[in-house]
Amino acid sequence: MDRFSFSLTACDGAARTGVINTPRGQIRTPAFMPVGTAATVKAMLPESVRETGADILLGNTYHLMLRPGAERIARLGGLHRFMNWDRPILTDSGGFQVMSLADLRKLTETGVTFRSHIDGSKHELTPERSMEIQRLLGSDIVMAFDECPALPADRDRIAHSMRLSMRWADRSRVAFGDRPGHALFGIMQGGLERDLREESAEALTAIGFEGYAVGGLAVGEGQEAMFGCLDYAPGFLPADKPRYLMGVGKPDDIVGAVKRGIDMMDCVLPSRSGRTGQAWTRRGQVNLKNARHADDPRPLDEACGCPACRSYSRAYLHHVFRANEMISGMLLTWHNLHYFQQIMSGMRSAIAEGRFDTWEAAFHADRAAGDIEPV
Amino acid sequence: MDRFSFSLTACDGAARTGVINTPRGQIRTPAFMPVGTAATVKAMLPESVRETGADILLGNTYHLMLRPGAERIARLGGLHRFMNWDRPILTDSGGFQVMSLADLRKLTETGVTFRSHIDGSKHELTPERSMEIQRLLGSDIVMAFDECPALPADRDRIAHSMRLSMRWADRSRVAFGDRPGHALFGIMQGGLERDLREESAEALTAIGFEGYAVGGLAVGEGQEAMFGCLDYAPGFLPADKPRYLMGVGKPDDIVGAVKRGIDMMDCVLPSRSGRTGQAWTRRGQVNLKNARHADDPRPLDEACGCPACRSYSRAYLHHVFRANEMISGMLLTWHNLHYFQQIMSGMRSAIAEGRFDTWEAAFHADRAAGDIEPV
Ligand SMILES: [Zn+2]
Ligand SMILES: [Zn+2]
Repeated sequence: MDRFSFSLTACDGAARTGVINTPRGQIRTPAFMPVGTAATVKAMLPESVRETGADILLGNTYHLMLRPGAERIARLGGLHRFMNWDRPILTDSGGFQVMSLADLRKLTETGVTFRSHIDGSKHELTPERSMEIQRLLGSDIVMAFDECPALPADRDRIAHSMRLSMRWADRSRVAFGDRPGHALFGIMQGGLERDLREESAEALTAIGFEGYAVGGLAVGEGQEAMFGCLDYAPGFLPADKPRYLMGVGKPDDIVGAVKRGIDMMDCVLPSRSGRTGQAWTRRGQVNLKNARHADDPRPLDEACGCPACRSYSRAYLHHVFRANEMISGMLLTWHNLHYFQQIMSGMRSAIAEGRFDTWEAAFHADRAAGDIEPV
Repeated sequence: MDRFSFSLTACDGAARTGVINTPRGQIRTPAFMPVGTAATVKAMLPESVRETGADILLGNTYHLMLRPGAERIARLGGLHRFMNWDRPILTDSGGFQVMSLADLRKLTETGVTFRSHIDGSKHELTPERSMEIQRLLGSDIVMAFDECPALPADRDRIAHSMRLSMRWADRSRVAFGDRPGHALFGIMQGGLERDLREESAEALTAIGFEGYAVGGLAVGEGQEAMFGCLDYAPGFLPADKPRYLMGVGKPDDIVGAVKRGIDMMDCVLPSRSGRTGQAWTRRGQVNLKNARHADDPRPLDEACGCPACRSYSRAYLHHVFRANEMISGMLLTWHNLHYFQQIMSGMRSAIAEGRFDTWEAAFHADRAAGDIEPV
């Protein structure tokens, strides 16, 4: 198949499972996308990322445009070849990262000018330039260029920003053009205001996209407020297109989002935690820095099939973290990504078999049990 | 087989090839041992180290006794299980590292007291304690405890130090006891003084060891002086036992040492270089930091079969080094270790087939050709 398509195979309540088909391979949904910011998922080789069960990676337009540069990556054959990942890649639009990382930002109707946080060089991002960069990278799923205010923000600011993002979504659609096999996703904004979310969804649907993201969440509002918004926001979007919740999240955020109809997510959490000695397991978070692990011969999680759990003790993971050895980040990132993919795979099966509620109850019961007792 | 043994299969001039048999597997000689200082070869998983062709790793007694502690590793089942490497491990005695890393050292006939460079805690190393630590670690090849003066040093200092090391070698032999399947290696000292080297070799041979190291070289004397010593020193040692040159070296040091009758070597160079953007290739050293690589779509070495060369461009390796990404150290360390093992494997075949001189000439010709021209 050489076109982008999405087919739902089962629903269970609001939760859905299906497959996104792309010329670079299938993406099983609900899908968790590891983040490969600078053309690498930190501390992992791409074949190892694949082994955890990832069907798709996320790349960051902002970082890649600054270093090594989109035109350079295009000359080198595109992002897939550059980073040795031949499966689908989704790239963000750069909008969110500019707002959180760049210096001397100036926002106008046209777009945003800013200075690089790396070398101070001056750049501009507009819907048109973002589409061009994502095309140069060779991204399979391109995100419309948007603007997202940090929460809390007042309603006027949220409404103004959302409407600007909708005008930019329209310009993104035009600039994206006709690219068979590639998808453009629109991004719903509107903060925690239900009517603004609905207005945004209507604007995006009128333009028409291959998928829709719920943007502007996971920006500090808390899980309860996020779930409150997810109780209605996905329902405003076309049921036959993938729904992507950006930047989410912790395991329980992910499960709650899938329960509410989300198909795709991304987050730096599993890899970032892995580099600071934090493991995510069935039984909650485990801090390998803690001295309680120094003499513990048991694996991090006896039921986990990842290399960190199959071949090493907690004592070893504690030691290499304390000794500041790279293998600490390598093993814990692998474990965390593996665990996140296990959650996704567990949810996909549960939805397909109509037992999502049972699966979810077991997920929460395991976490409530807490980590194993110290030796 | 459950005993330690060494059999030579071929000689070509002074160069030798053979096999060391141990209960944990064979070590093909000449052998290069990657260094796993703190129970990890930095930036590598042990299965990847094995894939490069390594038959044996080196562990550092000094580092492991301080963190996580030899008794702790013993309780956890020994160093092999702890670090997930089931093949042979050689451990150094701690003597050299104490002299180069520890604070407030005090050397007596008994041994050396010092403070940890990690936390300032006070420790003592003696021949007896070094043997005990290496037994607790479960080391397959144990090194006698010795003392090595930095060069240049005057002849009296070298002679005095060598004779102390010979008394310690005797105490090491006694303390090691009878451990079938494990080997104790004596360490020849004597600096660049031929008669002292001979005296040291005679003292060690009289005690009797399963193998013999040439110590006190690669400590700043330069290649010419080192080769000068290696022109005679290996000949003082029993021909039917393995000869180990400690802490060597660069590719041309390794080749020159094998040519002079050395069977085993270790060095941090390939892994340390890999973490600073330095690659060792057939055609010499390549600095991936250099801007000349930024747009180069070619592999580091088109003839190399390692993952870094098979799947990535120089442009990518340059980018991830500049972006300070862990994959930079991971890929370059893998390449460097792979290349060092390729040298060893090339020499083993050449010696077996009586064409070491031809092999050596080609090795030097490739290096003289220099790196490929910039794009
Ligand atoms: Zn695991
Ligand atoms: Zn290579």
